[in-house]
Amino acid sequence: MKLVRYGPKGQEKPGLVGDDGTIRDLSGEVRDIAGEVLSEAGLKHLASLDIASLPVVDGTPRLGSPVAGLQKIVAIGLNYSDHAAETGAEPPEEPIVFMKALNALSGPNDDVEMPRNSSALDWEVELAIIIGTKAKYVSKENALAHVAGYAVMNDVSERDFQTKRSGQWTKGKSHDTFGPLGPWLVTKDEIGDVHDLAMELDVNGQARQRGNTNTLIFDVPTVVSYLSQFMTLMPGDVITTGTPPGVGMGMKPPQYLKVGDTMRLSIAGLGEQTQTVVSA
Amino acid sequence: MKLVRYGPKGQEKPGLVGDDGTIRDLSGEVRDIAGEVLSEAGLKHLASLDIASLPVVDGTPRLGSPVAGLQKIVAIGLNYSDHAAETGAEPPEEPIVFMKALNALSGPNDDVEMPRNSSALDWEVELAIIIGTKAKYVSKENALAHVAGYAVMNDVSERDFQTKRSGQWTKGKSHDTFGPLGPWLVTKDEIGDVHDLAMELDVNGQARQRGNTNTLIFDVPTVVSYLSQFMTLMPGDVITTGTPPGVGMGMKPPQYLKVGDTMRLSIAGLGEQTQTVVSA
Repeated sequence: MKLVRYGPKGQEKPGLVGDDGTIRDLSGEVRDIAGEVLSEAGLKHLASLDIASLPVVDGTPRLGSPVAGLQKIVAIGLNYSDHAAETGAEPPEEPIVFMKALNALSGPNDDVEMPRNSSALDWEVELAIIIGTKAKYVSKENALAHVAGYAVMNDVSERDFQTKRSGQWTKGKSHDTFGPLGPWLVTKDEIGDVHDLAMELDVNGQARQRGNTNTLIFDVPTVVSYLSQFMTLMPGDVITTGTPPGVGMGMKPPQYLKVGDTMRLSIAGLGEQTQTVVSA
Repeated sequence: MKLVRYGPKGQEKPGLVGDDGTIRDLSGEVRDIAGEVLSEAGLKHLASLDIASLPVVDGTPRLGSPVAGLQKIVAIGLNYSDHAAETGAEPPEEPIVFMKALNALSGPNDDVEMPRNSSALDWEVELAIIIGTKAKYVSKENALAHVAGYAVMNDVSERDFQTKRSGQWTKGKSHDTFGPLGPWLVTKDEIGDVHDLAMELDVNGQARQRGNTNTLIFDVPTVVSYLSQFMTLMPGDVITTGTPPGVGMGMKPPQYLKVGDTMRLSIAGLGEQTQTVVSA
């Protein structure tokens, strides 16, 4: 299934995207795409519905983040062997973990704000994991049972804030709109091999990132199990798993976003996002 | 005013502590200590109530975190000149910012879990700021207008997870129960000079931390204004502002917590917490 949340910011309703691309309204069935709805039983209930009988949503509404009610966005750094090489960093021995503030969460096609005093705004196409059920001390073997599905995330980053303003990356990762998620939450049953998905990101129509989840250093079960040793993952929590090569910081010379620039990014099977950069 | 949330974990009700120490039930007035209730108008409404007419809560119920509905716990590192000296670090040029996952939030007297494979569990008594209204790009001069009040936080930390497990501190700061907050949210009008409050923490009755908020490197308005340049602060968000000297990591040799140890910590005017260490 492809689940969405559609409508104006802050007033999104739950929906489901049919095979023909039509959005069907789910608000008669569930209050939101959140909490128990993301459990195995919750998703099974949605899968059992007669899609043709659900109300069709007219037009092309704005999409919000496809998941709500989450507690956190956890991010993994330097998790692609080819991206680690690009930044000149050694591949990490254990996953590098940081957090994006929740206010960063944003719709897949919403504008991305350039913060004031920013001169190094950068892009990162990433595979995001959406947690389905509470996970604390789960093994790699059981990790996928706690995953509801996947989505595209742009882990938008301000590199000077991240690396030149006294320690800890969160400062460059947390501005409003720095976490476009979607368009869909694609349930895991619909993704064949999550470790073989093509990823790409263009800026103003020019190819920037080209990668594949098959160069992940720490794969999905490893990341979920590992994080669950340090913090309890809750339904709806988003884990964004790192980015393949081609970020602005890695270009020679580095190239960063300007107001008016457009990013288009996609992951095979998970859909596409488009964002325009605007002033904060 | 001293606001509390009392009752079993996950079922806390809002309350107010009178001058005689009695808890009065606020659930007839507000749904929770969260959101709009923390705005100037919301707090003014609570202050206008006839306390004597509110229902008395019998006995001594468990206290939860005195604030709910928050999006994040932001923490400032190395923010006391005497603590920076103790760890051998240079005082930072700008605030060091990291995040504690929200699942760490816990009641002031709840047990603290020692994570599995932990051998460096440490304490940090801290002044926590509770945000009252949304703050984005606020000046130092206007910062306090966005603050609802203050509380004690124990920024419980696993030092090996924090510093020896591949970059970024969040890994050692985010386990369940690593953020006891309370007992009260004390509104800012009730605190004379927030930059002159004695702080202390004992372990098993032995003095460990003794400090005062007058050695803060970055003071409350500076921290709120600074953070609001990087992320939008929301009602209820907690900013824990760093710890004075006396942490276990700074002792020679370092001394860490064991299962069964008891911490007692307090800040003048903000009350006292007691926690016992248990196995995760």
